Amino acid sequence: MTSGGDAAGMNPAIKYAATYAKKCGLSPYLVEWGLRGLIEGWVREATPDRLAGIIHRGGTVLGSSRSKRFYEYEFRKQAFENLQHHGITKLIVIGGDGSFSALNQFYADFEVPFAGIPATIDNDIPGTDYCLGVDTALNMIRQSVDSIRDTASSFSRAFVIETMGRHCGYLAITSALANGADVCLVPEVAYDLDSIAERLRMQKKQGQKYVLGIVAEGTGMGDTLTRWMGEALGMDARLTVLGHVQRGGSPTVYDRVMAHNFATAAIDGLLAGERNKVVTFKDGHIGSSSISEIAAAKHLVNPSLVKLCEELSN
Amino acid sequence: MTSGGDAAGMNPAIKYAATYAKKCGLSPYLVEWGLRGLIEGWVREATPDRLAGIIHRGGTVLGSSRSKRFYEYEFRKQAFENLQHHGITKLIVIGGDGSFSALNQFYADFEVPFAGIPATIDNDIPGTDYCLGVDTALNMIRQSVDSIRDTASSFSRAFVIETMGRHCGYLAITSALANGADVCLVPEVAYDLDSIAERLRMQKKQGQKYVLGIVAEGTGMGDTLTRWMGEALGMDARLTVLGHVQRGGSPTVYDRVMAHNFATAAIDGLLAGERNKVVTFKDGHIGSSSISEIAAAKHLVNPSLVKLCEELSN
Amino acid sequence: MTSGGDAAGMNPAIKYAATYAKKCGLSPYLVEWGLRGLIEGWVREATPDRLAGIIHRGGTVLGSSRSKRFYEYEFRKQAFENLQHHGITKLIVIGGDGSFSALNQFYADFEVPFAGIPATIDNDIPGTDYCLGVDTALNMIRQSVDSIRDTASSFSRAFVIETMGRHCGYLAITSALANGADVCLVPEVAYDLDSIAERLRMQKKQGQKYVLGIVAEGTGMGDTLTRWMGEALGMDARLTVLGHVQRGGSPTVYDRVMAHNFATAAIDGLLAGERNKVVTFKDGHIGSSSISEIAAAKHLVNPSLVKLCEELSN
Amino acid sequence: MTSGGDAAGMNPAIKYAATYAKKCGLSPYLVEWGLRGLIEGWVREATPDRLAGIIHRGGTVLGSSRSKRFYEYEFRKQAFENLQHHGITKLIVIGGDGSFSALNQFYADFEVPFAGIPATIDNDIPGTDYCLGVDTALNMIRQSVDSIRDTASSFSRAFVIETMGRHCGYLAITSALANGADVCLVPEVAYDLDSIAERLRMQKKQGQKYVLGIVAEGTGMGDTLTRWMGEALGMDARLTVLGHVQRGGSPTVYDRVMAHNFATAAIDGLLAGERNKVVTFKDGHIGSSSISEIAAAKHLVNPSLVKLCEELSN
Repeated sequence: MTSGGDAAGMNPAIKYAATYAKKCGLSPYLVEWGLRGLIEGWVREATPDRLAGIIHRGGTVLGSSRSKRFYEYEFRKQAFENLQHHGITKLIVIGGDGSFSALNQFYADFEVPFAGIPATIDNDIPGTDYCLGVDTALNMIRQSVDSIRDTASSFSRAFVIETMGRHCGYLAITSALANGADVCLVPEVAYDLDSIAERLRMQKKQGQKYVLGIVAEGTGMGDTLTRWMGEALGMDARLTVLGHVQRGGSPTVYDRVMAHNFATAAIDGLLAGERNKVVTFKDGHIGSSSISEIAAAKHLVNPSLVKLCEELSN
Repeated sequence: MTSGGDAAGMNPAIKYAATYAKKCGLSPYLVEWGLRGLIEGWVREATPDRLAGIIHRGGTVLGSSRSKRFYEYEFRKQAFENLQHHGITKLIVIGGDGSFSALNQFYADFEVPFAGIPATIDNDIPGTDYCLGVDTALNMIRQSVDSIRDTASSFSRAFVIETMGRHCGYLAITSALANGADVCLVPEVAYDLDSIAERLRMQKKQGQKYVLGIVAEGTGMGDTLTRWMGEALGMDARLTVLGHVQRGGSPTVYDRVMAHNFATAAIDGLLAGERNKVVTFKDGHIGSSSISEIAAAKHLVNPSLVKLCEELSN
Repeated sequence: MTSGGDAAGMNPAIKYAATYAKKCGLSPYLVEWGLRGLIEGWVREATPDRLAGIIHRGGTVLGSSRSKRFYEYEFRKQAFENLQHHGITKLIVIGGDGSFSALNQFYADFEVPFAGIPATIDNDIPGTDYCLGVDTALNMIRQSVDSIRDTASSFSRAFVIETMGRHCGYLAITSALANGADVCLVPEVAYDLDSIAERLRMQKKQGQKYVLGIVAEGTGMGDTLTRWMGEALGMDARLTVLGHVQRGGSPTVYDRVMAHNFATAAIDGLLAGERNKVVTFKDGHIGSSSISEIAAAKHLVNPSLVKLCEELSN
Repeated sequence: MTSGGDAAGMNPAIKYAATYAKKCGLSPYLVEWGLRGLIEGWVREATPDRLAGIIHRGGTVLGSSRSKRFYEYEFRKQAFENLQHHGITKLIVIGGDGSFSALNQFYADFEVPFAGIPATIDNDIPGTDYCLGVDTALNMIRQSVDSIRDTASSFSRAFVIETMGRHCGYLAITSALANGADVCLVPEVAYDLDSIAERLRMQKKQGQKYVLGIVAEGTGMGDTLTRWMGEALGMDARLTVLGHVQRGGSPTVYDRVMAHNFATAAIDGLLAGERNKVVTFKDGHIGSSSISEIAAAKHLVNPSLVKLCEELSN
């Protein structure tokens, strides 16, 4: 099952999970349209033709949804009966922490254990350094910035690019690093526009032709920074809001390999008797965290990235 | 010289023009930063190292600019003296109709003939079916739409995509056709939101999962259509404004081949004694139009494209 | 039906043909796996779910095949009975001239008229300037050459790239033009290795760092040219055979638009009573040629391309 | 300095190293054309215009070379004098273990310490889990395989793809995993063609339409496997040798971020007094290994990848 916001890497995770489950002697099923599908009973066997030709496709072929009804016991009960009907005794959910909490409640009600696979381009699930979809999103952003750079350098203009990221600046900071941006604003780091302007004026004086700024959606600063740059530098300044272009695209190799590693670890964990854990990637190794650990923890961006960002926010 | 808004295909045009000029026994120069560079005298010989490794790059390595000073005789005179200084007797300008008019006035003053190469992603220069940069822009839009489609299909959502195009819907209509959009709004075609909503409701009833709309910037309808779709269809609806991502990117083969054909035709025309003509592509053939013909004409989008759009605007 | 070698643009052509047929009040069917499917009766209604999400996919979702059995009357009769069974009275075949001949014979036997849509990356069907798949193939080649150029320029090496094209050098010549190659060998143009070597030696002396050669498969000269370059220039020289990478990839906008224009013209023609014509693109306009005209004609590459190639073959 | 085979990520490493060196108060220089440039004295200050617009380019803008002369003391002495001339006291070399050994000898002679940054698409330098260029190469392979898959699925064919990798199957195995290949042959893992054929025949019987095999260059098995597949499965089988397409391409975000981390660690190490160490990435952390550790170690592919490959080699 996929649930919550879509992310590249969900399709390979579906494929690897189903394939590995079969290797382990299990009979995998696919739940369509997330929690809503669980309630409605949109459940099918994972036959080879359902899994063919999906490894290289973005989004999720199972569909996703947000379902408020799942908060109500009555609908969870209905979901449980659907699973019983097919003889399904364990769940794998690919999604974010909202989905994991929902299934944790489901376990409290009906004792159907699940394993969570973290997938969100915001990369903000506590306990794991990596969530599926992030590498693909970063590379989609990279391609857009490379294209915008063509115009910026043709005109000696200032360009501000707004990436996704409501509470977490991971995408923005990493993109600023990878694309050589001059300015980066994210929710986690304080910024000083005057100090930025002074720095950029000096860079311009030293011969720099164009300016690139990257802003995380969550700062709400896209328009303001663009106007500010235009005025402070006396340059034509433009804002581009990348939007949903970042979410799609064929999963990169990194996302496919991580999808494989997460999917097989999720099944291994369930078979070993683990209950309600989320598979994680920490310090270069696959592991797992319990739902309570994740709920108690707070996601923090890597301090070295924060430090890099500070240089670009001042 | 490149002038006006940047477009993919400018760099190959620079390269082919300089290379072909040398083959014809001429000594080509490069003017940097457009009309401003003409005034400032930023003119250099087209040496091989200046032309190496540019054929596959977006934007223009010469830079472009918009110069109001060129309206004044005094600055045009300065530009003329710069050309005389280098012994430059003919100009090739890659850009839009504003740049062509400016050089027409320059000719009236100092009798320096020029040939224009049409380049603008809006594809709205009268007299030619094609302007450099259009094919690359269409393919950049295609890649963005393909990515957005991943999310749209994962969620059964409505997505509206705003393309560039102030007065001309060419990019939007062609993208709607190429990407199988359900709705298309452009400045040239009247639309009826009620009729669109009715049609989409029917398509949804017949099993269509997600909806794609494409809107040209010039309609100013991006927000309105998105809200309308959300309400009329009871679907989550999102707007993506593609912005400057459309302008950049490595020139496609079509843009490179057209850049070659335009550049060689421009030089052949100047050598044959033509004055102040813009090279054109009509009915599959390279030709040329005089500046006065272009100034008198009105750009019209191909009627068959307008007809296609009418089906998507109602 | 798609038949013969696959080409990008086949999927959009299938989609546009089926959609437009419905608009015209017809009931379109899809034949799977080409002529073989016609014989076996692998024929299905063109329902919306069969046509969803195919416009941006390379190859052909219908599958293709080469069938020798179709030469035998007995199997053609079986094919005819399959069509009768579904009430199918007209055919659209997307493919090459072999497939068109086969269906011409089928018409002679059973009077089932067809319209042909030219699709082959070789661009060698007489009577049309364009065949579906060519623009996508050229852009796949462009991306590969751009990548190889990175290495060539890092090492001052000579690289030879072999494109597809058994009898026709269109892909190779256009790629040589679009990628700024120094050498191009194709079946249609005589070449002189000594003269090439002398020219390249001079270019190297003038400071050129690396050398790019493009060779059409049909010349069989990939290995020889590579060795020759290495010896004549005293450079490390490498051959890359692009192979089937050229055939696939998401169809470009040009291929999608041409697919639309060909597909609607094919249906318009059949409805207007045309018999056994192939839709064509000549001088910038959609038209059609009869099978006999095509069979009698000889495909010739555009003389201006041949001339360009001559400069790179000597 | 870049040295040895080129790899994507070299350019960002150059840029980050020079930028960070300046931040640390150093005066960075650039050596062109690798060891050869060291001997010839092709050394220049790292001025901003030399570093502009390189972060997104494949290969190395500094050029690389292989130099046998560096084995001779006389030429190393000349190289040392070149460094003295510019007051250069420390070296950073981006390349492979051959280059590191050469500079180790150089240190033995003249006590010029260096830091190595591992860069090779083969990912076979002992002591580090990652070498620059690998992620970009894997994604170039992915795009080629996605394109080939279009044809394979259109025809129910068998396709064999040969990746680079002389002694190391890392690229091939990871690509097999990421692209869902059915067969994978690498130098490190024994294979059994009969067993493979039996497995594929069964898969075909169960409805699988096409077959993908991936072979590392070092096995020399490309042709043999392709023929074998064709015969054993009675399918049309084709080989594609990806060649130098794998080496180029704009560096992915992962390669850019690793380039940053390696480059700053190399400078931090040199400033902290480390001598002749290679920066490494182990268990998710940046560290370093001495040249002697690297020379003594043997590179081994991750055992879990080997296990995955065993399933595809039998």
